[in-house]
Amino acid sequence: MAYAITTTVPRPFAAVLQQTRKVLADVGFGVLTEIDIQQTLKMKLDVDIPAQVILGACRPPLAYAALQAEPSIGLLLPCNVVVRALSATSTAIEALDPQMMVGVTGNASLADVASDAGARLRAALDTLESESIDH
Amino acid sequence: MAYAITTTVPRPFAAVLQQTRKVLADVGFGVLTEIDIQQTLKMKLDVDIPAQVILGACRPPLAYAALQAEPSIGLLLPCNVVVRALSATSTAIEALDPQMMVGVTGNASLADVASDAGARLRAALDTLESESIDH
Repeated sequence: MAYAITTTVPRPFAAVLQQTRKVLADVGFGVLTEIDIQQTLKMKLDVDIPAQVILGACRPPLAYAALQAEPSIGLLLPCNVVVRALSATSTAIEALDPQMMVGVTGNASLADVASDAGARLRAALDTLESESIDH
Repeated sequence: MAYAITTTVPRPFAAVLQQTRKVLADVGFGVLTEIDIQQTLKMKLDVDIPAQVILGACRPPLAYAALQAEPSIGLLLPCNVVVRALSATSTAIEALDPQMMVGVTGNASLADVASDAGARLRAALDTLESESIDH
């Protein structure tokens, strides 16, 4: 099952993370949670992984519609957007593909919400891609 | 696809939420994020839904193992545990079934991590169930 919408840009992690927050806001997604996985694993296990942050993105009207259609959908909310360093100058941005909600739940009435969310997230990632070419 | 491990207890939401944080800690899961969905939707959309909180639960050694096996697995982390009111005296507790990670990614090397996480979450929910009988 495809579960990610992804892109890679030739820019350093910190700049891309900041840009990602902005493009998500531009497509109507707020960031409800933010987990610095690199820092968490360093602190808890004393292991080193490349920089990685999980943003918990949410568009309230879509979350509300999803909850009406599938009462347990909170298990798959918010929609995660992962920003992670591949190298000093290359960063991956991955969004959970909202279509997987339809697949996992088997609930076709989530299809419209998933399409709307997916189109917005794809637009956000497209912007990240084109900005990394322009500048 | 089964995506939830669930139970329902005959106790009010606030008490169960507090208990859930405790039983998660007892099985080795920290709570990294907490989203009050009821409050968020009231604030953003002025709509009323029953009390519902999403706890982002994480056991760092399992998260680390999962990231080694599947670099994009951050999209499905942390493991959500939803506590939601069904009535004034009945509360549902649902954990995302970690086995869905294996199904969604098609990556069999996540199976051991998913089994370990699933057993712990099931134990946590069992404790909630038995405590609601004992007291």
